[in-house]
Amino acid sequence: MDLHLALPRGRRGVRHGLEHELRIAIQERRLLEGARLPSTRALADQLGISRGVVVDAYSQLCAEGYLTARVGAGTVVARAVDLQPTRQLRETKLPLRYDFRPGVPDLSAFPRRAWARAISDALTSVPDARLGYGDPQGALELRAALASYLGRTRGAVASSDRILVVGGLGQGLNLLWPVLGARGIERIGVERPGWYDHRTSVSAAGLSPVDVTVDTEGMRTDQLGSLRSVVVTPAHQFPTGAVLAATRRAQLVNWAKGADGFIVEDDYDAQYRFDGKPVGAVQGLVPEHTVHGGTVSKLLAPALRLGWLLLPENLVEPLTLRKRQLDRGVPLLEQLALARLIETGGLDRHLRRTRRVYARRRQLLLEGLARQLPELPVEGAAAGLHIFLPLPDQVRVGELTDRAAAAGIAIRGIQRGRAGLALGFANLPDAAFAPAISTLRDVLRAALRESGA
Amino acid sequence: MDLHLALPRGRRGVRHGLEHELRIAIQERRLLEGARLPSTRALADQLGISRGVVVDAYSQLCAEGYLTARVGAGTVVARAVDLQPTRQLRETKLPLRYDFRPGVPDLSAFPRRAWARAISDALTSVPDARLGYGDPQGALELRAALASYLGRTRGAVASSDRILVVGGLGQGLNLLWPVLGARGIERIGVERPGWYDHRTSVSAAGLSPVDVTVDTEGMRTDQLGSLRSVVVTPAHQFPTGAVLAATRRAQLVNWAKGADGFIVEDDYDAQYRFDGKPVGAVQGLVPEHTVHGGTVSKLLAPALRLGWLLLPENLVEPLTLRKRQLDRGVPLLEQLALARLIETGGLDRHLRRTRRVYARRRQLLLEGLARQLPELPVEGAAAGLHIFLPLPDQVRVGELTDRAAAAGIAIRGIQRGRAGLALGFANLPDAAFAPAISTLRDVLRAALRESGA
Repeated sequence: MDLHLALPRGRRGVRHGLEHELRIAIQERRLLEGARLPSTRALADQLGISRGVVVDAYSQLCAEGYLTARVGAGTVVARAVDLQPTRQLRETKLPLRYDFRPGVPDLSAFPRRAWARAISDALTSVPDARLGYGDPQGALELRAALASYLGRTRGAVASSDRILVVGGLGQGLNLLWPVLGARGIERIGVERPGWYDHRTSVSAAGLSPVDVTVDTEGMRTDQLGSLRSVVVTPAHQFPTGAVLAATRRAQLVNWAKGADGFIVEDDYDAQYRFDGKPVGAVQGLVPEHTVHGGTVSKLLAPALRLGWLLLPENLVEPLTLRKRQLDRGVPLLEQLALARLIETGGLDRHLRRTRRVYARRRQLLLEGLARQLPELPVEGAAAGLHIFLPLPDQVRVGELTDRAAAAGIAIRGIQRGRAGLALGFANLPDAAFAPAISTLRDVLRAALRESGA
Repeated sequence: MDLHLALPRGRRGVRHGLEHELRIAIQERRLLEGARLPSTRALADQLGISRGVVVDAYSQLCAEGYLTARVGAGTVVARAVDLQPTRQLRETKLPLRYDFRPGVPDLSAFPRRAWARAISDALTSVPDARLGYGDPQGALELRAALASYLGRTRGAVASSDRILVVGGLGQGLNLLWPVLGARGIERIGVERPGWYDHRTSVSAAGLSPVDVTVDTEGMRTDQLGSLRSVVVTPAHQFPTGAVLAATRRAQLVNWAKGADGFIVEDDYDAQYRFDGKPVGAVQGLVPEHTVHGGTVSKLLAPALRLGWLLLPENLVEPLTLRKRQLDRGVPLLEQLALARLIETGGLDRHLRRTRRVYARRRQLLLEGLARQLPELPVEGAAAGLHIFLPLPDQVRVGELTDRAAAAGIAIRGIQRGRAGLALGFANLPDAAFAPAISTLRDVLRAALRESGA
């Protein structure tokens, strides 16, 4: 077996080079899940390097989760490997002309002046004593503002003492899983297809993600069975865009009560609904069995790294203690600034403004796709910041993504559970849609042809 | 049946108002499970609104799971709704008159204007694209500024690609331990007496803290034996204030090379030295075997939650991946602001200013203690932001701390390894020292008497 590794011998050392090349090969899917690697001796001979270097590289990649060493079966590429899109793109440094990756709002709309004013107000008014180590649960001003905001806009049952401020929703999940694990909840349901980070954060915490199927009515709540926790995107499923149907909501709620379990409601982009039919948060129905999570990443900007969990009472203390142990809380000035932006109506104004922009861009994308790719109908509700373009199962989405990148288009492909593309439209300027969709069409048509679909 | 709904007729519309009021009524248990709602016609008449609005509101709340429409039984409040009264806001603690707890700089000296300007400059100049998800390793500007700063002020061997920006030094350690654990390093040496968080963060990661004794020359490096990693405060030991002796530094360095291990250098307050004898970082001697950590908590303010690790090359990637998995990086604007503060000399100016203040306060504390408590001599070098007051071993430090708190004085007691008090002097106004030391003397004398020391 020739791995076709380009082994650099620069100052970074042979072992590092080998690790790096193997990692990239796995990330780029040149080495697929389950693929068996040569023995350390064979690879060392093949590359003309010492066996110890190969052993070190293999064990490092095992530690990082890329490889698994099975007794009697040698070393294989781990099943759990998921790609790290940010780093991968950074390393390959492709010149991307159009970025359809979901999860980012219109960054050019970030309310810089309002934010600067809010930060400056916070800096002027905060008492000296609060510049020390603060409440790891979060600044009371922000928790109170969020409680009122979530009650008003999401129908949540919220109070400041139930809110934990976190460094992004992903951090919130990373804090949550070990607390559930300590209560004997070791299997966590995740949507399939679903958001990449749900599955990886569960695995990273040493718990087991369990697939729960998604269809056009959202998560198949009849599959929850003996699970006691599930992470779900009820308002706008990622990636399919389905809204959890009323019967499913009821079933989810009944399951949570019956199982004495926890619904983890990822409410990532629920503020965006373009057909006037917003759906309240599931949390409002079963607050004692729901962990409701939100983030400013889709409202303002990911770079702020700010999110929140609205918790059942009995999870507040264990999670706050974990947050304290982890990093002693989120930076204060940003918290105070966000509180101010909410209280002064600045966030509402920003949302009203951007909702119009997003409705227009969504329309541009839908119309463009309908015109250029009529054979591929789009799915999902008129909500959120991305649309879902299902693909025939034969299409190799990884290759498609690579090819799109080579053509200057960044897309997020979904293969697991349902083949398709999640196309984010929020951060593309209006004028980019026409040329971007044309290029995407060419790439997609070529992939469809090759797959025989 | 009168639902006592307060129906707002603002711009958000009657339907929205009705939905909201019904939701709240159910959440607050004014409408109980199974309660039957008026017919849509009856409620419309009662409220003087069109029936269509009521139909829409009911069906929306059915979709959300609050209501159930039963054939022949009308619309009832769903069984699924589950609520509990929320707790009151947490009680605030009694204010302490004098706070000697170590670890906090002079918060009244925080350079608010310089920081506001740095944030505002960052907000004005940062390109839109960088408001998305950034490099989890940290903003390049900050990593470059820190590398140059650490080289210049700490004699560190630093480059931007070796620095990981973290949410406080504690978070940095929490990221580090699992990476060492994955390399088979499961026992971590910690100083005894030492900083509480070192021990707890090692334990929290599932690794074993191993005590290493400290004496007046710092850590007993002859005890490192078979360890492969140790966390140490060489510039100013916490709590004893000892500076690691030159022979011990040499021994530490040789051990790290021989063991192929990692020195974790906690450089928390090394910028403060009042006798003109700064000692360079150990990292400068063995960069490939040292994880050097620092924080703005002692330089500017803990509320910023910003720190850094300067890493051996082979730890950069695994730690960056962990940081990405944990929270995708530190908030960007604060990073850019700190980079600017360093580059423009603002941080140096702040340090020059506060060093004078701290030298004076340290003197006030030392002179006051010498006058009021001559029987208890102080230990440690003329450095850092706290002094160490050793106590006879018979003194129960926990009780002493409680008693001091009752007298309005917050102190940090040390029992493990060496009884004593770590008295921080940076954040007490000059005028507070005389009365605070008098009160402390009374509390200490009483404790000494009772312990028979």
